[in-house]
Amino acid sequence: MVHYGESAGEILERIRSARPVVHSITNYVVMNSTANVLLAMGASPIMAHALEEMEDISKISNSLVVNIGTLSKTWIESMHLACRLALSTGKPFLLDPVGSGATKFRTQTALNIIMTTLPTVIRGNASEILSLSSQRGFTRGVDSIHHVEDAVETARSIARSLGTVIAVTGERDLVTDGDRSLIIEGGHPLMGYVTGTGCAASVIVGAFLTQEEDPVIAAAAALAFFGLAGEKASEEAKTPGSFWVKTIDALYSITPEELEARARITGV
Amino acid sequence: MVHYGESAGEILERIRSARPVVHSITNYVVMNSTANVLLAMGASPIMAHALEEMEDISKISNSLVVNIGTLSKTWIESMHLACRLALSTGKPFLLDPVGSGATKFRTQTALNIIMTTLPTVIRGNASEILSLSSQRGFTRGVDSIHHVEDAVETARSIARSLGTVIAVTGERDLVTDGDRSLIIEGGHPLMGYVTGTGCAASVIVGAFLTQEEDPVIAAAAALAFFGLAGEKASEEAKTPGSFWVKTIDALYSITPEELEARARITGV
Amino acid sequence: MVHYGESAGEILERIRSARPVVHSITNYVVMNSTANVLLAMGASPIMAHALEEMEDISKISNSLVVNIGTLSKTWIESMHLACRLALSTGKPFLLDPVGSGATKFRTQTALNIIMTTLPTVIRGNASEILSLSSQRGFTRGVDSIHHVEDAVETARSIARSLGTVIAVTGERDLVTDGDRSLIIEGGHPLMGYVTGTGCAASVIVGAFLTQEEDPVIAAAAALAFFGLAGEKASEEAKTPGSFWVKTIDALYSITPEELEARARITGV
Repeated sequence: MVHYGESAGEILERIRSARPVVHSITNYVVMNSTANVLLAMGASPIMAHALEEMEDISKISNSLVVNIGTLSKTWIESMHLACRLALSTGKPFLLDPVGSGATKFRTQTALNIIMTTLPTVIRGNASEILSLSSQRGFTRGVDSIHHVEDAVETARSIARSLGTVIAVTGERDLVTDGDRSLIIEGGHPLMGYVTGTGCAASVIVGAFLTQEEDPVIAAAAALAFFGLAGEKASEEAKTPGSFWVKTIDALYSITPEELEARARITGV
Repeated sequence: MVHYGESAGEILERIRSARPVVHSITNYVVMNSTANVLLAMGASPIMAHALEEMEDISKISNSLVVNIGTLSKTWIESMHLACRLALSTGKPFLLDPVGSGATKFRTQTALNIIMTTLPTVIRGNASEILSLSSQRGFTRGVDSIHHVEDAVETARSIARSLGTVIAVTGERDLVTDGDRSLIIEGGHPLMGYVTGTGCAASVIVGAFLTQEEDPVIAAAAALAFFGLAGEKASEEAKTPGSFWVKTIDALYSITPEELEARARITGV
Repeated sequence: MVHYGESAGEILERIRSARPVVHSITNYVVMNSTANVLLAMGASPIMAHALEEMEDISKISNSLVVNIGTLSKTWIESMHLACRLALSTGKPFLLDPVGSGATKFRTQTALNIIMTTLPTVIRGNASEILSLSSQRGFTRGVDSIHHVEDAVETARSIARSLGTVIAVTGERDLVTDGDRSLIIEGGHPLMGYVTGTGCAASVIVGAFLTQEEDPVIAAAAALAFFGLAGEKASEEAKTPGSFWVKTIDALYSITPEELEARARITGV
């Protein structure tokens, strides 16, 4: 039996000592908050989008997170190059298909990245993840997905057909590679009243991927860590402004031992 | 006699239950903070600026807020398209002419939007609003405007000549369509020490416009709501960092009843 | 003997009464936080990057801060124009070469700005500053720089060869024009866990440059002020989210007298 909590604590400990560099090409809305998330937890963010420096940035970074939350043509070019560089150097990379399904432009951008350079992990909410399968004959069924448990089979199919790890976040989170599926509990409803919490989850997974080779374990541990930060924040703050400040505080102050003891990850 | 406070409370209640989608094309400086403002109050922000997805974004949004705080050519194109789409689908939209009057580029951009697709509401500070009239034979008189009361006549003329609603924010706020003019009291001087409070006022008006057909009532109610949030924040925080956190908290925790009881909107 | 603390207090007092306009062309990550830094301390930020409005923005601003943290070609053009305008109108301007040394694109961009329009002050961390000299026969020695004292000679050489003022920030800060060198103490390790603290230091120097003609004095006073804000914040907050909120609060509440009494600036 795998002790997921123990793994989570150990990965966090390695992050704090290695201070891995996570390269993010992300949307304007969350750049500041996700940089602060990475710094608070003990990692090092680099935000850079210029085509001219993708190669140099790739050399000094330990993982890549691509987030399509605010797109434009030139940025998409840089995203593709960054993903190719990650793939060719064996660096883990995560795709956050923000708003996929909401506009054709985003769905197509996400699918293009997936088709040309398969990400190590794709993390999104249920409707974003399901939108990635709509062109492959899956029914979307977005409206019928109220509990992550109902998404397990679809997410498994997508993971299996793509050959990657899918992380679906929501009230509870799901991580699956098609064979193994883990449910992660934690977090707090106030997270829905703060911008960029999904994007924050993605960069945390990006940091965990640098210190754990198994992306299923890395993603589940990262989501358990973020969920715990939200829970701890909610003990001190009941309103979203203060809640987010306390979430950042918790990402800094949660110890590996605390994460080991409180991570709630179970197989399904 | 109109009970403005009652209207304000009712609109807020409708927002909280409808969670309307407010599409913002706004400046880089405030994207994070205005997204948090909308989420905290109970609305749903979408930030998107790519020409390629304007049509899809328009379909899923309930109102549009265009803010010219950090401009570039490609963004202006998207702003125009978004405004045309809002106009053609009968969706309310607000223009925030940030820095109009300070540079010709901004004044011209604001005027072009106004001339081609008349916004439902234009919200700015006194000098921004007055800059919009300078090319139409109004004297600017920016330096002489110390109290919003002195701007009433000019704002009325602009509203009447354009045929739209003008909201002038400052120590006190003014909303007018040329016929009806309302003064809104509230807020706190610390708002001047935090970036993006004007932009925050604009997206709040954008949210209120989705749930109230009369833009004069919607804008006045929105400004009363934001003013009350500032007042409540100032009861707990005397310095700008903490003050802004508490303002976000207040946008979440103010109830419709509280807004109804404390909104200070009077005809003039 | 120069009383640096007294100078610092006096400059802060002048800023609070003049509310100087600091034009920033800066990276997406810190736009919100540096705007809040400037507002909290009593200055006025303008963030603008469009080539079309550089001239008008230059006319209404009192100093310029150029930060290369997230680059793209069109922005570099605007940076060059803004620097030329500052130079031709005798306005102080600061270059923050974020990430110089990490990518050739950034090093080259920083060097191009320096070569064509020599900034009044260049502020960076040790590795950024040393990267600016690597093409001129200095050894980089980044890895050997653990204390700012070890960087004094190199920074002096760079300042002398360029003919400008160099500010190196780190655990302790150094300001030198090649002849005079000042060490500034203050700050707190938590600053390393918040994004944009270096960028914040830069805009504060940008504000101080508007009220003090000697850039060595202005930069040292600014860094002492920011260091004191960090120290005061650390007395109330032990975690990075709360720490940054309290830092903004301190920038607002530190009085000129307090800065005079607590600034720790010494010649070296």
